Amino acid sequence: MKGKFITFEGPEGAGKTTVLEHLMRDKEMLNMAPMFTREPGGIIISEKIRSVILDKEHTEMDSRTEALLYAAARRQHLVEKVMPSIREGKHVFCDRFIDSSLAYQGYARGLGIDEVLSINQFAIDEMMPDLTIYFEIDPEIGLKRIAASDEREKNRLDLEDLTFHKRVQEGYEIVLQRFSNRIAVVQADRAIDEVVNDVKGILKKYLSN
Amino acid sequence: MKGKFITFEGPEGAGKTTVLEHLMRDKEMLNMAPMFTREPGGIIISEKIRSVILDKEHTEMDSRTEALLYAAARRQHLVEKVMPSIREGKHVFCDRFIDSSLAYQGYARGLGIDEVLSINQFAIDEMMPDLTIYFEIDPEIGLKRIAASDEREKNRLDLEDLTFHKRVQEGYEIVLQRFSNRIAVVQADRAIDEVVNDVKGILKKYLSN
Repeated sequence: MKGKFITFEGPEGAGKTTVLEHLMRDKEMLNMAPMFTREPGGIIISEKIRSVILDKEHTEMDSRTEALLYAAARRQHLVEKVMPSIREGKHVFCDRFIDSSLAYQGYARGLGIDEVLSINQFAIDEMMPDLTIYFEIDPEIGLKRIAASDEREKNRLDLEDLTFHKRVQEGYEIVLQRFSNRIAVVQADRAIDEVVNDVKGILKKYLSN
Repeated sequence: MKGKFITFEGPEGAGKTTVLEHLMRDKEMLNMAPMFTREPGGIIISEKIRSVILDKEHTEMDSRTEALLYAAARRQHLVEKVMPSIREGKHVFCDRFIDSSLAYQGYARGLGIDEVLSINQFAIDEMMPDLTIYFEIDPEIGLKRIAASDEREKNRLDLEDLTFHKRVQEGYEIVLQRFSNRIAVVQADRAIDEVVNDVKGILKKYLSN
């Protein structure tokens, strides 16, 4: 019996990662035997690709180069980590996946959602997520959350301005409409326990079917 | 006045690189002010990507990851090196380009010529070569030439067997038919001076128009 492939999406500061950390310590969730991961996920080739993308000295990197590198790191993580777990019958919970590229590179950076979808379809080769949980939040609230946290490593993306984050959200809205059959939306601007409860409810319902 | 973008293609051992070295020392050619390059072409991001591809320890690399990385390195080399020269009015002579990916990854590795064309069209964004010179050679003769040379660095691809090289040639044959309007074929199984003369003839005719 194959496991399900479930992805978690949303703009910066929406609380995805915090919620996933709660799920990782949750007995009911652990009984469902999920495997938690995020790209590059400790896969050596993907880690090396990611270090090329995030190098702050690479300010001259073209946005198409960046999108191709994300797709390459995605492919290798999928092949080495996600697919073997799914074949073993584990449910894979992945923090960010294809929809992040569609919203960030495709829409916010202006490369085109269809164009970025095309290179990602090459990378994924039919392995689209079975279910995606989208964390909906006002980008200003998301950015305030990031600013308030000093734990979080500030990478290149965190330095982008509010305009960019608003564009990311607009991109996600288009993605939500386009793939509405696999995406469940959670209101993420509430207390963490409420959000965790909603997400658990969706997962339990989906995985018990 | 924009320069022309001219690429040189062919299987291993076809003599492309040797011919290009002759052209680089040729007065008539130098008067036409060409810029000689090959991917990754000293572009730091592309060099780093290439080192991930060619690392002999990465035997677990998926062929789709590899194709995406080649496309990423191609994009950055194009943006940083090829396009600025063409805008300055220089003719760019590039040793291998998109057709190599179509023949090697698309056909010989079985990813599909259309699929690999699609990610490369994303990378190239309309910058298809104006002219391509294809070096036609029997793959067995090409491989014997490689074996006879001890100067040439043996990378992962040189270790592939004859079957693979025959598939590369079959892939190129399909590419030749598909893009016949921009590809000129040179018989490469002859003495180097004869091949150089043919190539010079094609270039002079094309660039004087």
